[in-house]
Amino acid sequence: MVHQQIDGEYAEKEAWALRRQRGTPNDRRLWVLACMDERLPIDSALGIREGDAHVFRNAGGLVTDDALRSALLTTQFFGTKEIIVVNHTECGMMSASGEALTAALKEKGIDVDKAPIDPDLPELTLESGAFAKWIKTFHDVDAVCERQVQLLRESPLIPDDVVVHGYVWEVENRRLRPPHGRLSERVNTSREMGTADQPEV
Amino acid sequence: MVHQQIDGEYAEKEAWALRRQRGTPNDRRLWVLACMDERLPIDSALGIREGDAHVFRNAGGLVTDDALRSALLTTQFFGTKEIIVVNHTECGMMSASGEALTAALKEKGIDVDKAPIDPDLPELTLESGAFAKWIKTFHDVDAVCERQVQLLRESPLIPDDVVVHGYVWEVENRRLRPPHGRLSERVNTSREMGTADQPEV
Amino acid sequence: MVHQQIDGEYAEKEAWALRRQRGTPNDRRLWVLACMDERLPIDSALGIREGDAHVFRNAGGLVTDDALRSALLTTQFFGTKEIIVVNHTECGMMSASGEALTAALKEKGIDVDKAPIDPDLPELTLESGAFAKWIKTFHDVDAVCERQVQLLRESPLIPDDVVVHGYVWEVENRRLRPPHGRLSERVNTSREMGTADQPEV
Amino acid sequence: MVHQQIDGEYAEKEAWALRRQRGTPNDRRLWVLACMDERLPIDSALGIREGDAHVFRNAGGLVTDDALRSALLTTQFFGTKEIIVVNHTECGMMSASGEALTAALKEKGIDVDKAPIDPDLPELTLESGAFAKWIKTFHDVDAVCERQVQLLRESPLIPDDVVVHGYVWEVENRRLRPPHGRLSERVNTSREMGTADQPEV
Amino acid sequence: MVHQQIDGEYAEKEAWALRRQRGTPNDRRLWVLACMDERLPIDSALGIREGDAHVFRNAGGLVTDDALRSALLTTQFFGTKEIIVVNHTECGMMSASGEALTAALKEKGIDVDKAPIDPDLPELTLESGAFAKWIKTFHDVDAVCERQVQLLRESPLIPDDVVVHGYVWEVENRRLRPPHGRLSERVNTSREMGTADQPEV
Amino acid sequence: MVHQQIDGEYAEKEAWALRRQRGTPNDRRLWVLACMDERLPIDSALGIREGDAHVFRNAGGLVTDDALRSALLTTQFFGTKEIIVVNHTECGMMSASGEALTAALKEKGIDVDKAPIDPDLPELTLESGAFAKWIKTFHDVDAVCERQVQLLRESPLIPDDVVVHGYVWEVENRRLRPPHGRLSERVNTSREMGTADQPEV
Amino acid sequence: MVHQQIDGEYAEKEAWALRRQRGTPNDRRLWVLACMDERLPIDSALGIREGDAHVFRNAGGLVTDDALRSALLTTQFFGTKEIIVVNHTECGMMSASGEALTAALKEKGIDVDKAPIDPDLPELTLESGAFAKWIKTFHDVDAVCERQVQLLRESPLIPDDVVVHGYVWEVENRRLRPPHGRLSERVNTSREMGTADQPEV
Amino acid sequence: MVHQQIDGEYAEKEAWALRRQRGTPNDRRLWVLACMDERLPIDSALGIREGDAHVFRNAGGLVTDDALRSALLTTQFFGTKEIIVVNHTECGMMSASGEALTAALKEKGIDVDKAPIDPDLPELTLESGAFAKWIKTFHDVDAVCERQVQLLRESPLIPDDVVVHGYVWEVENRRLRPPHGRLSERVNTSREMGTADQPEV
Repeated sequence: MVHQQIDGEYAEKEAWALRRQRGTPNDRRLWVLACMDERLPIDSALGIREGDAHVFRNAGGLVTDDALRSALLTTQFFGTKEIIVVNHTECGMMSASGEALTAALKEKGIDVDKAPIDPDLPELTLESGAFAKWIKTFHDVDAVCERQVQLLRESPLIPDDVVVHGYVWEVENRRLRPPHGRLSERVNTSREMGTADQPEV
Repeated sequence: MVHQQIDGEYAEKEAWALRRQRGTPNDRRLWVLACMDERLPIDSALGIREGDAHVFRNAGGLVTDDALRSALLTTQFFGTKEIIVVNHTECGMMSASGEALTAALKEKGIDVDKAPIDPDLPELTLESGAFAKWIKTFHDVDAVCERQVQLLRESPLIPDDVVVHGYVWEVENRRLRPPHGRLSERVNTSREMGTADQPEV
Repeated sequence: MVHQQIDGEYAEKEAWALRRQRGTPNDRRLWVLACMDERLPIDSALGIREGDAHVFRNAGGLVTDDALRSALLTTQFFGTKEIIVVNHTECGMMSASGEALTAALKEKGIDVDKAPIDPDLPELTLESGAFAKWIKTFHDVDAVCERQVQLLRESPLIPDDVVVHGYVWEVENRRLRPPHGRLSERVNTSREMGTADQPEV
Repeated sequence: MVHQQIDGEYAEKEAWALRRQRGTPNDRRLWVLACMDERLPIDSALGIREGDAHVFRNAGGLVTDDALRSALLTTQFFGTKEIIVVNHTECGMMSASGEALTAALKEKGIDVDKAPIDPDLPELTLESGAFAKWIKTFHDVDAVCERQVQLLRESPLIPDDVVVHGYVWEVENRRLRPPHGRLSERVNTSREMGTADQPEV
Repeated sequence: MVHQQIDGEYAEKEAWALRRQRGTPNDRRLWVLACMDERLPIDSALGIREGDAHVFRNAGGLVTDDALRSALLTTQFFGTKEIIVVNHTECGMMSASGEALTAALKEKGIDVDKAPIDPDLPELTLESGAFAKWIKTFHDVDAVCERQVQLLRESPLIPDDVVVHGYVWEVENRRLRPPHGRLSERVNTSREMGTADQPEV
Repeated sequence: MVHQQIDGEYAEKEAWALRRQRGTPNDRRLWVLACMDERLPIDSALGIREGDAHVFRNAGGLVTDDALRSALLTTQFFGTKEIIVVNHTECGMMSASGEALTAALKEKGIDVDKAPIDPDLPELTLESGAFAKWIKTFHDVDAVCERQVQLLRESPLIPDDVVVHGYVWEVENRRLRPPHGRLSERVNTSREMGTADQPEV
Repeated sequence: MVHQQIDGEYAEKEAWALRRQRGTPNDRRLWVLACMDERLPIDSALGIREGDAHVFRNAGGLVTDDALRSALLTTQFFGTKEIIVVNHTECGMMSASGEALTAALKEKGIDVDKAPIDPDLPELTLESGAFAKWIKTFHDVDAVCERQVQLLRESPLIPDDVVVHGYVWEVENRRLRPPHGRLSERVNTSREMGTADQPEV
Repeated sequence: MVHQQIDGEYAEKEAWALRRQRGTPNDRRLWVLACMDERLPIDSALGIREGDAHVFRNAGGLVTDDALRSALLTTQFFGTKEIIVVNHTECGMMSASGEALTAALKEKGIDVDKAPIDPDLPELTLESGAFAKWIKTFHDVDAVCERQVQLLRESPLIPDDVVVHGYVWEVENRRLRPPHGRLSERVNTSREMGTADQPEV
């Protein structure tokens, strides 16, 4: 009967709206840690869609205290079993050093040691002089991706059975690779192609 | 000629790939602070698409030190001029108190005061006993949204000319509202509809 | 052969055109009682289409004598087995009282007690002074929906085995709910989410 | 800026949701009186869509007291300026007489004179013995359509400047015609085609 | 292998191009006799498409000597087993009498008795004075359709096992009916609907 | 207003249904003479559609007495100003001689001289022994196309200002050509390509 | 898990990018020899797509030394098992003789005997006076197609088990035929259709 | 009139079919020299389509004598004004040395010095021992692309006003680049991004 069909559709909408109250996990039991860059389309990159994953994003796609806070909530309380880290090439975090950025801020008149880093949580404090390090710039995207995976695997705040993997999004190719899995390094010359009997010109 | 057409397409791809090196801002000059919930589809909610915005997401969509770090990078160095905060109804951050969550972690054998909150940045420290507050649960989504907007507007780390607004995503209706702009509160009874001459039954 | 195909198609069209003469019921054996509001799209709301249901609509979606006349015809003579009532939020019937409307009509020079309420059926009469009540404004859409279901279930003019259910169409969300099934009442604060250990701020 | 775009969309949804509170008429300023038959698709028949019209439907598409109540509300208070009546061929109201239907109900044990015709409005009464007439069966769809137009034009409850027209929906052809505008009566023989010099065989 | 695929496609095109040389019948083994009217879309009316049928069309859709010549070719030599006749309402052949048309031609200065009716076949002759009859106007489309079916069934030039049926295309409804199968004659009044207990008003 | 829109649509349907009664010509003022072959899709071949043309089709696409009857009706009385003849390659009319076909019919026991060639028009007679010629087989499709154009241009039954053209449909290529306009004759060898200095191998 | 899905997609892209290094043949194990003409769409003509075939194209679609070099590489080393030759009608190679072209070049001041025919391979030499022959014009597309197939079948540089076929693309019909398989030669006259009893007019 | 429309379409088809006879160039006046690899989709890579370009393809996309023969025909006689060279990454020509390939052929029993390299043109000869060089393997795709452009620009067989450009197709990214324009070399580390003040870790 028609009323059964309507009741069924209402029940589905209710289940969607009350997921957290009912303890329903997200559909893929997935937490994503990714950079906030505008050229990183998380859904199409990972082949996921609305409902599938909790998606954490910050500058760099790095393991910060906020990332660990969010990761522990989803893995300890919301049923998440998998973590995927996504960093990307040409990240703004590689475009200048923390020191240079700190100096630039000071030049703008900002007292970086006095500015509250979390105004609603004064209990969180940063050692004086650590501001440049706190910005967390880095040098090598493949290395940084592997490091984030390691940090998450080792954190006592995340259950041991959560599976953690990392990938690099190539903004120039709109494609994911494993760290150090750059295909374009293996195809341009006979040496790259590993042709032993071909002397390089 | 055809080579001009090919050169033009290559130049477009190059400009996309080297945005940070060339100091190109994102297309809408926008930074988004949003919750990591799986039911919050940022792109369709805001009417934006790949290339348009830097998107920061954490548990709750809250102003943390990581959020401020990311916000200062995009607004001070990457050309961003607008901030939009998106919180949402039925947020997991309203489903339990920080104390209850801390107690649950302890029961699992996790020493919350000793676990490193940022293993690569020991300079960042949390006062002992503040773990429950650090989790940042909250009670009222409209109030919390307004508060995040205020924090961002007041932070010395963000330029004064950056425009900040906040919205609540209704997961039950898949729609944005301004804080306290809940339409369904105004349409179910004659009293809600403001009909003065209608005595409530 | 082709003529058999043509004959088959003609037979289908004939069956459609002569449904009432042949005693064929509508496809879902359904009668709908709904408000006449322009924002209430019956077909998409109920998931039905041409051929599926007899659809009665009046101001408010209310059980009037005309509604009962129509309901008895479809259930007693045309094979209908199910009734669905659809009222909706922000109904014009909640926007003013019957008294206010009656007064407004009088101000326009209309003698409401003398105007024929059914010019082709003078046998139908309305007690003098009952005009305001005859307009049938109401105060609470959930309550009115439950009341219409009750009236139809109790009417001796409708067979006992006809199944009756009611729903409220939320014009603000373009969605049906059962009476009192408003999802947005359960998701905005920790108290609404039923978190016992969360003191309201 | 993006927040302006979001605010604009919210304002549109608010305007839709609060039409009656703000005195906004429907989009075509139209009220439709139509039969409840399942083969009468109002939207496609009239070329209208959601938001365009208030649609009243009852058994037959007839001017009852309920129809007049609904018509006066929309024309006197909700800004409606046009009325369209839609009756249809092969209407169930032509498939039996009121007397036959009344007799059938009595045979089923229903005391038609005692059954409340509007249980929430006892002030509305039907003369004893008038039940068969109250059912409002009819004989000729073109005549009945013209009659409903006349009744609406003459009713003192409807403003004089409201424009009223009527059409017959041909269920066999899925098409509207004006009353007596049956095309198939003019095309099958030379006599129908008005060929004066063609003696009928 | 790819060459096999190409050879297969070539063989299909060859089979299409050489159907008559190879004695291949059309796909539905069908011959159609229909009027040449611009409002009669044979393919969609019969549910056939390119390749399916031999389609003969003349003024009226009538059995002429040319129609019989064409019918005998397709049924005796090209494998056709079914004939469908299609006449239509509002045919030009019902719009004037042969006499009137002949008179009009004479007024234009055309000597109808001397004009060659088949200039390449002088062996075919028309009795003087028979010109008006030769034009073949008619009075009743249903009668004429039944007559054409009869003429084809009785012709010694067509094999006895060929199946012949006729239909009338209603130009006003864009639909086929069997002769005398006009649906719109049965649905407008209670008398047409065969309601015995309903006295006509 | 909506009623104006409905009236407009009804007027259009009425105009379509009553074209012949109102003296409306077809949309392209075109009469087509074409073969009845199943591989000849008239509409797509000529780029026309429903409403555009009166389409006469017989075995061969030939000027018979029936073709002239139909042509005079459309050009003298229905407003047609253009004639297009369409013959086609691999026509069944080239697959055997009239004599062979006549002999085959006789072998089947059909007395071709006694069979009525138009049973409803005994005034039309065929000279004894002319049956084979009456079948109208032919030898060369380009020649026959040019001949039909000539016959129509010369017929006193068709007005002088009617424009007549002919084309050949290539069933092997699904394409029209003017008579003798076969492209594939000009492209396979250097001689066909008209290369004077290229001695044929 | 999601990481497995991502790893699978990466592996597919890697396999595509490293086909030659891994010894993967193309998908149809096919090598095509075709003319470079702009009207010859190889993919749609052969029903193949990206990844399916190695496609060699030169002026004429002829077996040159370059063609044999390319053919031996694909068949001896890259796993190819099938060869398809495609020539086409109205080829530029039939539009003038080699002598005429050579003369034209000389008139432009080009010393054809001194111009290096392969500047990076002086070991390849052309006998003086052979320039006109080296251009490789031809006279008959069907003959040339058969000849290329023969040359490839007989070459000792190509494995014996490679299957070789040839086709002619008809630019006038956008269709492949086998050599000498021109359909349009068999359908225009009764003689072409092979009707023995039909004397040509 | 319809015949004008048909004549126009025929003229277009004729112009396409007789391009070479009429001296019509291809649509973009373009000649392409590209590798025969199955992963190199010329049309989509260059943004061209059927009719636009003469496309020469061989193993490697190299300037051979056959390439010069084809290039001179299109530029000297068929109106071409632009040349684009397309080589690609992971080319089979980089997967082994000419010596290794020659040795492998000898092992298969092929006498490379005796095999005819152009059986229909014995006037073309290859110095004994030059077979390995004739195979034309190479080491670096960017260098080889630049070299082919140079060879074409310098050849006396090609008019000086013809514009020549070269590109590398990245099979791993399905994208064109100018020689040495590899984007992925500039985005993975801070050093590649040219950040002077960032010491490499």
